[in-house]
Formats: sequence, structure tokens, C-alpha cells
Amino acid sequence: MSNSAYDDLIAYVKTTSSLEEIGGVLMWDQEVMMPRKGNAQRSEQVAALEATIHARRTATEFADLIAAVDTGPLNDAEKMNVAESQKTYNRATKIPAKLATEIARVTAGAQQVWADARAANKFADFAPTLEKVLDLKREEAKCLSDGDPYDALLDDFEPGMKSGPLLELLSSIRPGLTELRGAIAEKGLTMPRVLGRHPAERQMAVARRLADAFSYDWEAGRLDYSVHPFSSGHNNDSRITTRVAEEDVFNCFYSTIHEIGHARYEQNMPLDLAGTPAGKYASMGVHESQSRMAENQIGRSREFTRWMFHVMEQELEPFGIETPEELYHAANRVETGFIRTEADEVHYNLHVLLRFELEREMVRGYLDVKDLEGAWNERFLRDFGVEVPDAAHGVLQDVHWSVGLFGYFPTYSLGNIYAGELYAAMRADIPDLDDGISKGDTSAAMGWVEKHVHKRAHEVPPEQIISDAVGHKPTGEPLLAYLKKKFGDIYDL
Amino acid sequence: MSNSAYDDLIAYVKTTSSLEEIGGVLMWDQEVMMPRKGNAQRSEQVAALEATIHARRTATEFADLIAAVDTGPLNDAEKMNVAESQKTYNRATKIPAKLATEIARVTAGAQQVWADARAANKFADFAPTLEKVLDLKREEAKCLSDGDPYDALLDDFEPGMKSGPLLELLSSIRPGLTELRGAIAEKGLTMPRVLGRHPAERQMAVARRLADAFSYDWEAGRLDYSVHPFSSGHNNDSRITTRVAEEDVFNCFYSTIHEIGHARYEQNMPLDLAGTPAGKYASMGVHESQSRMAENQIGRSREFTRWMFHVMEQELEPFGIETPEELYHAANRVETGFIRTEADEVHYNLHVLLRFELEREMVRGYLDVKDLEGAWNERFLRDFGVEVPDAAHGVLQDVHWSVGLFGYFPTYSLGNIYAGELYAAMRADIPDLDDGISKGDTSAAMGWVEKHVHKRAHEVPPEQIISDAVGHKPTGEPLLAYLKKKFGDIYDL
Repeated sequence: MSNSAYDDLIAYVKTTSSLEEIGGVLMWDQEVMMPRKGNAQRSEQVAALEATIHARRTATEFADLIAAVDTGPLNDAEKMNVAESQKTYNRATKIPAKLATEIARVTAGAQQVWADARAANKFADFAPTLEKVLDLKREEAKCLSDGDPYDALLDDFEPGMKSGPLLELLSSIRPGLTELRGAIAEKGLTMPRVLGRHPAERQMAVARRLADAFSYDWEAGRLDYSVHPFSSGHNNDSRITTRVAEEDVFNCFYSTIHEIGHARYEQNMPLDLAGTPAGKYASMGVHESQSRMAENQIGRSREFTRWMFHVMEQELEPFGIETPEELYHAANRVETGFIRTEADEVHYNLHVLLRFELEREMVRGYLDVKDLEGAWNERFLRDFGVEVPDAAHGVLQDVHWSVGLFGYFPTYSLGNIYAGELYAAMRADIPDLDDGISKGDTSAAMGWVEKHVHKRAHEVPPEQIISDAVGHKPTGEPLLAYLKKKFGDIYDL
Repeated sequence: MSNSAYDDLIAYVKTTSSLEEIGGVLMWDQEVMMPRKGNAQRSEQVAALEATIHARRTATEFADLIAAVDTGPLNDAEKMNVAESQKTYNRATKIPAKLATEIARVTAGAQQVWADARAANKFADFAPTLEKVLDLKREEAKCLSDGDPYDALLDDFEPGMKSGPLLELLSSIRPGLTELRGAIAEKGLTMPRVLGRHPAERQMAVARRLADAFSYDWEAGRLDYSVHPFSSGHNNDSRITTRVAEEDVFNCFYSTIHEIGHARYEQNMPLDLAGTPAGKYASMGVHESQSRMAENQIGRSREFTRWMFHVMEQELEPFGIETPEELYHAANRVETGFIRTEADEVHYNLHVLLRFELEREMVRGYLDVKDLEGAWNERFLRDFGVEVPDAAHGVLQDVHWSVGLFGYFPTYSLGNIYAGELYAAMRADIPDLDDGISKGDTSAAMGWVEKHVHKRAHEVPPEQIISDAVGHKPTGEPLLAYLKKKFGDIYDL
């Protein structure tokens, strides 16, 4: 490779990427380590860093470097790097500084307004602010593209994906999910529960063994506490956090596995492309497929929970569950609830679909904020069969819209659909997959995704990575089939 | 204040300062939290950040902002900000990029060469590398100033200080110290020792109470482990680290107090000047005066160790010391040793003076690297009365020169001299100072330095802060008088 113009571009891009990584370190520190009073200083630091990054993204030097590259002789990953650089430059330059500042200003305050409205349980307190945020995001979308404004926002999280086909894909599993939900509710079985209060250190001892089961590389990461679990960093510094509620060990255990799924993806990415767009995660949907597959398809499987039962026996005081099969059932309890983040595998995507359709209508201008609560409640009753009791358990439950995240929700469900596809393909490829999993050894599964997903990073568009891995264009069928089989068995349908 | 040119300069300076603070966060993270494999990535991040900071320091925009300010109507702190901005610009622009890169490259490798040479106990292995480092630093000094090259380097750590008067000041305590050292050695008393192995958690419980005794603000800082104790950060995010050796509790306790002394200085600095030169520490000497006074004048006093004895009784298993007076003696054992970092109060400044004089001669071109080991050993015998056994216990013990730190050593002793002055003035001002200290309450002492030193930050040159605080130009007398009185009493001289 002696395309020196390309090399110059990559050097520039890598420096920007290093500065972006610093932003990640600051965020991690703020959530996990920073003393309380450090907040104001930290805001100044973040603002200074972001201004630096923005200046690099909008620099004429950057545009000139991109323009100088002859893409003819480049391979896929290299072409992706040039295309993504162009996209970054376009996004950064198309949004006027005044609008960007206004969005930052309004969303910074909006999160508090949302939190207050949720505490007061009153959508009307939040509606005028949400309207402002929505208007600004619609204006941003208009700057980015002449086409569908929702697609313009979605593209930030799921490159290349259009919301029409995405809606079709996600909607395809809706009838199956509502049917399954209804059948389980009708059956009315009660699942066992994990009992007792379990101190943080004991739960963390289990959490570390869960991370080991997924070959988490402790020399390239760490596990800490935070209020909301998250993963952060890339490559050889990919950290996760978890939380502990003494009376609810699954909260800690499955948060840990979820974040480990994200972190293993980051740890495995190809180092030779590190710091370039092609060497980063393909999309939010692909990222989520890795966390959800670890958490659900593997972590909530009969085989894995069998092993986890023995780990819990070793690390915890008695927890009110007598057999591995009971633990499997406890980990797969299905219950109609109002809160997305607490939802089981059957309900989860129904929560997401509702948000996706509503936010899409709002961004496209077909749904007014003043009608949002009504639309939410009506739709919820239809899909879940129960009435939303109040705004805090309904339209006010998620932070996303207050901070301007429109176009993010559907990537959660897309991730589940991708996870369904990948897991089915993996099972077909590896007949004895369950043998390892039932011993707490997921290396066969992890090796498969490492090869087919992780190591490809963002060399090609996200959907292509999945279709290359599974041999066809992804559909909702495998996910739905998996859910029907698993819960049909557990709930004796 | 409506000098808008000044305000523009300050806005620029504060942004650069926020980026510098980020460098501090990255450094802390690297030493305390970062997973081992994260090193390479982190180096890229730091390099990207440093390039950004360097670009801001050398920007024409910066020079123009400085030039636009009319300093006439400015107060002391504001004048300091303009002067220090000019100095920053000058230093950054006077050193050619090529030389800066070469220094970074050579010193990065030199530290490993030094570590290997120390392990091999062979100065000759390090000498050629040290020569290269020295040549580069002398070249840097020449770029910075037409005058004395050592003064040019010293100015980075002790603004405004010249090495001639500094040598005179530090040398003034040398005869008194060698005499005191000799008298103690001749007396041959054996001091009690703290015995037993004490687990890290128990030692840390004491360390936290020591921090409390100095009113360390835990909401504006934190205490962690690291290989080498250090303090980092500013204002409302001023963190410290300590280390634990199970069989040597003083290592942890006095490292903690030392770093707390640094951190209290940072926590107390005036917020209205935060992010500007006038709102930062005055000099390394002043910084060290705060840590050494906390550690020695207060922390090793009869009154403080009396309180510490009871804390140790509460937190530790029996430690072989029966009375507060025994602990006071144990904490003040004087022993001729070869290693600076392990030296007691009597020997410490003799170690520093030796290094200061040798490095000054080297930078000024009067001492060749090939003659350094001989000069060291000869001088050591003269001041300490014993022969250096080998290079690892002599000329190879400190990392400083390998990383290009010339002009740094004397600030350690200057800090001790300042601490001597400040403590004497404080005692004169507060007659009942010992009452609080003997109860583990240093708030009177801390209040005094807060007012006279911390809150003044760098409004005026460092030496002026000290002389304003004590009412005269600082000398070595109070330190020497304090040492003679304290150790004359302990060693019954």
C-alpha cells in the first residue's frame, strides 16, 4: 500500500480518534471515579475537548486530505475509511455551529426538566421542552439530508439503514410476540424466584466468574460499579461497569453479561485498523446484538444457567432455588410490565417498537408532542393488553428523547433480531455448542462471533456483516422461532 | 473589569488549561486504573492531546491576544496572567519542534536504559545515554535564554528563581546539617521500631483518618493505591494516591500525609482564578513546602504522633510500640542511608544539595558525565561520612536525569526551607497551635496556610508569597533551628 494521500488521511483520522477516545476515558472517570464536586471542572474539560474535535472534523485540511485520495486501488476497509471520513466531515459541516450550540444548550437543560416531570408524574411539565428538542432535531435532520428526516437521524446510529425497511423488519415479529405474550399470560404459571439479600462482594465474585465465562480479558479491561451499567473504551482498554441490588442478583449478573458482550466485541476488533472508522463497531444494532446474545441466547439458556447455578451455590448464601432447572425458569420469568429496561425477552421488542413508531411519526411531522401521551397509552393497551397507569410508567420513563436521541431506539430491537440470526447460524455451524456452555465455557460461541463479526469491525456496512455471517439477508424469523421454542417449553404452551 | 482584550485572552488560556487538566486525568487513570494492555492506546491519546496543547501555545492567535492587552489597569493577578501567558508562548515557540520531538524521543527510551543500568548496577551502561539527554537539555536551555543555561531550566519549576542565590540559600544550611548528622551518629542511640505486618485495609483505615486530620475534602478528591504515591488534579478534583508495605506502616502513613499536603494546597486555590496561571500553584518549591510541612513539621511532631498513636491502637493489631513518646521517636529515627527517598529530615537536604550542585555543574558545562560518578561518591563521603557502596545506591538511584529533569531537585530543599519559615511564622501567630494538633485537628495550621499561601495561588512570584507570609526574605535559619531543637531533644545532644 503506497497510497501516501490515503496514509496522510489515516494519520489525521487516527489523531481525531485518539481525542475521541479521551472523551470516553473522561466519561468513564466521571461516572465511576470522579469526586462529586469535580463536575463543573469536568464540564469545562469536556467542552474544550469537544471544541478541539469539532475543529478537526470541520477543518479544510481534513476536506483536502479526503479529496486527495484516489479510491481506485483501495480495498473494502480502506474505501470505508474514506467514505466514513467524508460522512464525518459532511455531518460536522452541514450543521451550523449556532444550531449545534443550541441543541447542546437545550438538551443539557431538558434532561433535568424530564427528570422533574417524571418525579411529578406529569407529561405536561415535559411536553413544551420536548417540543423544543424535537424542533431542533428536525432542523438538524433537514441540514443533514433532503430526504426523510428520520432516516437522517437514524443513520448516525445505524449507518446505511433506512427506517422504511427497518420498520417492516421489526414489525414482522410483532404479531408473533403479542401472540406469545398473550399465551403466556393466559397460562398464568408462576416462576420461582431468587430469594435473600446478597452482599455486593459476593455478587461481584459471581460477576467476575461470569466475565471469565465469556473470556473477558482482564488485562484489557476492568469491572467497576456505577449507577447505570455501561461499557466504554475500545480494543485493549474496554471497560465495563455493573450495579448491585442486594435483593435482586439477576440485576447484577445479567447487566454484567450484557456489558461483557459489548466489551468482548470491542476487545476483539482488529488492531491494524484501530483508530479508523473501518476498525470500529459496525453500528449500534450490531453492538447490541453482541450484548443481547451474550445476555439472552447464551446467558439465559438452560445450559448456561445450569453452570451458573453451581457458581451461585459456591459464592452465595442459600438463595431459595433448589435445582438448576428452577434457576433456568427464574431467569426466564415473563411478566407484563410497563418499564422497558425491566422487560423480559418476550416483551422487550414490543416496548421498542412502540417507541420507534412514535418517534418516527414525530420526526416526520405526523404526530404532535401534545398527542404523544395519548398515542403511547393507546398503543400500549393494544400490544400489552393492559392500561398504562401513569406517565412515569409510560411516556416519561426513558431519558432518550430529552437528550435528543431520536433514531436510537430501533437499534435495540435490530440488535435482538441480529442476535437471533447469528445464534441460529452459530448453532448450525457448531453442533456441540451446548457442551461448553453448560460448563461455563463459551469459547466456541465467542470464537464464532469473533471471526464472523468482531474481526470484521466496520470493514463493510453493518447489514452486510450480518448477512455474510448467516448467509442471507437478516429477518426476524430466527429470533421469533427461538423465543417460541424456548418459552413454549418453559411455559408449557 | 471591562478590559475585553484581557477577557478574550483569559478565555483562550482557560481552554488550554482545561486540556492540560485532561492530561492530568489521563495520567492518574494510567497510574491507578488503566488495564495493563491499554498502554499503547494511551500513548497515542496523550500524544494527540499534547499536540493539541502545543498548537494552542504556539498559535499566532495566542500571541495576538496577549499583545492586545493593555496591562496598565490590571491588578497583580491579572498582570501575572498576561506575563505567564507571554512566558508560555515564548517557551513553546523558542524550542524548535525538531528539538522538542528529539527530547521526547530520547527521554522516552532513556528511562528504560537507566532502569536497566540500575538493575545491572553499572553507571557506564547509562552514561552515554545521560550524555545525550544532557546535550539536548543544554540545547533547550540555549534556545530559552542567552544567560545561564541552568537558570533557564530551573525557571520552569521555580519561576523567577536564579540558581546563584538559590545555591547560596541551600548551602547555608549545609554546615549545620552535617554537624547535626555527625552528632547524632556519634551518640549512637537506637530508636524504637514499629513491628508486625499490617494488612492494607487496616493501614488504609489509618490513612483515611490522617487525611481527615488535615481536613482533606473527600467530595473534591479521592485516595487510591499506586506504585509511587502522587497527587494530581486541581481545585475541586484533587486526588492522591498512596502505597502500602505491610511491614512498614510509616511508608503508607507519611506518604499519605505528604500527598495530602499537596492536595490541600490544590483544593484551596481560589476558584475565581481557576484555569489561569495566577490561580495555579506558585512553584514546585511552594508546593513542596506544603507537603513537607504536613508530613514533617506537623505529621512528625510529638503532638501529632501522640494522636496518631491512639489511632493506630484503634485500627491496627499490636505494633510493638507501647507509648506515644516511643512512636514519636520511631517516626523520627535518624539513620545515615544512601537513598534520598528514604532519608530522614536531617539527611534529606544533604542528598538534594549534592544532586543540585552536580547537575548545575553539568548543565553549565563544568562537569562531564564521565566524571559524574566519581564526583558523586567523593561528595557523598564528605557530607555523609560513609562510602557509597555501588552505583545503584549512588549516582543511579534517581529517575530524574534520565527523563530530562534538570533544575527540579533544588525545589525539594527550597520547599523544606519554605516549610521551616512558614511553620515558624505560624507558631508565632497561633500560640495554642499544638492543642489542636495533639487531638488530630490541624485546622488552625491549615487555616493559616490557606490564608497566607493557598488562597494567593500564583498571584505574585513564589518568593514574594513566602516573604509576605513570614514578613521577611526567606532564609534557612528557621528550618535549621527547628531541626536542631527537635533532634537535639530526641537524641539528647
